[in-house]
Amino acid sequence: MTKDDVAREMRNLQDYICVELEKLDTGGKFVEDKWQRAQGGGGRTRILESDELIEKGGVNFSEVHGEVTPMMKNNTEITGDSFFATGVSIVLHPNNPHVPIIHMNVRYFELDNGKYWFGGGIDLTPHYIVPAQAQQFHQGLKDICDSFNKNFYSKFKPWADDYFFIPHRNETRGIGGIFFDHISDDASMTKKDILDFCMTLGREFPKLYGYQANLGRSKEFTEDELSWMHLRRGRYVEFNLVNDRGTKFGLVSGGRTESILMSLPKNASWVYNNIPVSGSNEHNTLELLVKGRNWVNTL
Amino acid sequence: MTKDDVAREMRNLQDYICVELEKLDTGGKFVEDKWQRAQGGGGRTRILESDELIEKGGVNFSEVHGEVTPMMKNNTEITGDSFFATGVSIVLHPNNPHVPIIHMNVRYFELDNGKYWFGGGIDLTPHYIVPAQAQQFHQGLKDICDSFNKNFYSKFKPWADDYFFIPHRNETRGIGGIFFDHISDDASMTKKDILDFCMTLGREFPKLYGYQANLGRSKEFTEDELSWMHLRRGRYVEFNLVNDRGTKFGLVSGGRTESILMSLPKNASWVYNNIPVSGSNEHNTLELLVKGRNWVNTL
Repeated sequence: MTKDDVAREMRNLQDYICVELEKLDTGGKFVEDKWQRAQGGGGRTRILESDELIEKGGVNFSEVHGEVTPMMKNNTEITGDSFFATGVSIVLHPNNPHVPIIHMNVRYFELDNGKYWFGGGIDLTPHYIVPAQAQQFHQGLKDICDSFNKNFYSKFKPWADDYFFIPHRNETRGIGGIFFDHISDDASMTKKDILDFCMTLGREFPKLYGYQANLGRSKEFTEDELSWMHLRRGRYVEFNLVNDRGTKFGLVSGGRTESILMSLPKNASWVYNNIPVSGSNEHNTLELLVKGRNWVNTL
Repeated sequence: MTKDDVAREMRNLQDYICVELEKLDTGGKFVEDKWQRAQGGGGRTRILESDELIEKGGVNFSEVHGEVTPMMKNNTEITGDSFFATGVSIVLHPNNPHVPIIHMNVRYFELDNGKYWFGGGIDLTPHYIVPAQAQQFHQGLKDICDSFNKNFYSKFKPWADDYFFIPHRNETRGIGGIFFDHISDDASMTKKDILDFCMTLGREFPKLYGYQANLGRSKEFTEDELSWMHLRRGRYVEFNLVNDRGTKFGLVSGGRTESILMSLPKNASWVYNNIPVSGSNEHNTLELLVKGRNWVNTL
């Protein structure tokens, strides 16, 4: 299993997900930007903007290589002289406040000294949390995890709780999901097993999101609910720009800014000290944005 | 001149600026939140939201003290055991795209070992740059600087160019202004002189902004110009959350999040890879967002 094999799988995954998301959206089409990286490699950034389901969404593929810079050595555990990295990353912002924002990424990293690892994550950010839907999302992730390794969900779920957290708000970004990094072969799994896990997660992504989206997309919504969606998108922007290690690393290491910041919504809003009325749907959602909630057995 | 004297001046400056900005707005009134800091001190956050000139603006005063934490020692040159800090900070986002965003802050820091310094900055972020207006703004700042110290403008203007810069966009935030930090008494200025400089800058602020605002506030604008304003506000959000050292320090050191993030606009927007048509007003503005431009002698 060479790095080119992994990159080919990632590229195919991007193709598959884009086809499925266009079907799900029922109106929008992805527009592609191919880009080259001066220091080596490049990518395909695909953006969909639609009046149907997805107001703004991106599905990025990249395959880059080059020298390990001092900046990378300072920010990661990277030790070699040159690196190779490939992956797919996705963020979808829907039009309807009753449909959640979703993010997923799967990635592979390899050094010239032979070290390699996989990483990834998927998390759901409902503007309005519906516990039964959150349960369904986490059960789906647990089922995928369990089919590969009985320890994955119990390890990767709290990892997501820690990662997708906004300290200056003392809120989780949403209902979480799974997050993993530095996964290499060991006694329990081969390199191919780990790649299969990433690819299965990626191929299940359109179904996982489709289930959530179809429950909310036809719901009526008010101007107030739209405003709430924009406020929650503001929090999403805060997380991505202040807390997300991947975004920060990309921006300071000279990544392609427009590809990295495709994760930001078309519109976001900030209102000073907005505190929803106790008992409102907005307030109830805030109450659920806490670390460590067991969504699988919550009901 | 004790730290309490400086804090009183800062508090009075907030009062003065709020009165003047309400007159300038002609409709909005500041709403005040008094807050206490658990570790010592507190502040007065004042927010104005208006349908007239200022869509969303904040004028903060704070006076805080406490122990120097390891986090502060790692992020600053602070050496003592306990600190005192007071200051006023302002960000105003207007309703009309032909009126610029403005920011100002003046601040004072003192350590128990007797060290102290002043800092501050002011910068203008037009959604559409009008060189004659930019010239006027910089000339006004230069005049204030020159009346205190002939070296200030030539030192503080490039400092602002460096500070108010967005590396991942390779753009300045706007047309800059002045920025200064770690200013203490020396052969040329007493402590009182430096405080007077900060207070003069603060008291000239409503006039400096009033001049800019009154030129643009009655101009007609199109939906496209409004969309452009929201995109430029997106850049403002990026600077504040990714690059602004003051914001980052405040958020990670447990500052009051709502007071710090009053700097964010009511609405901001991101559109993938938006590139204005060559020769458009939007394109011309982007061309002017470069470091090192001499605005005083530009015309």
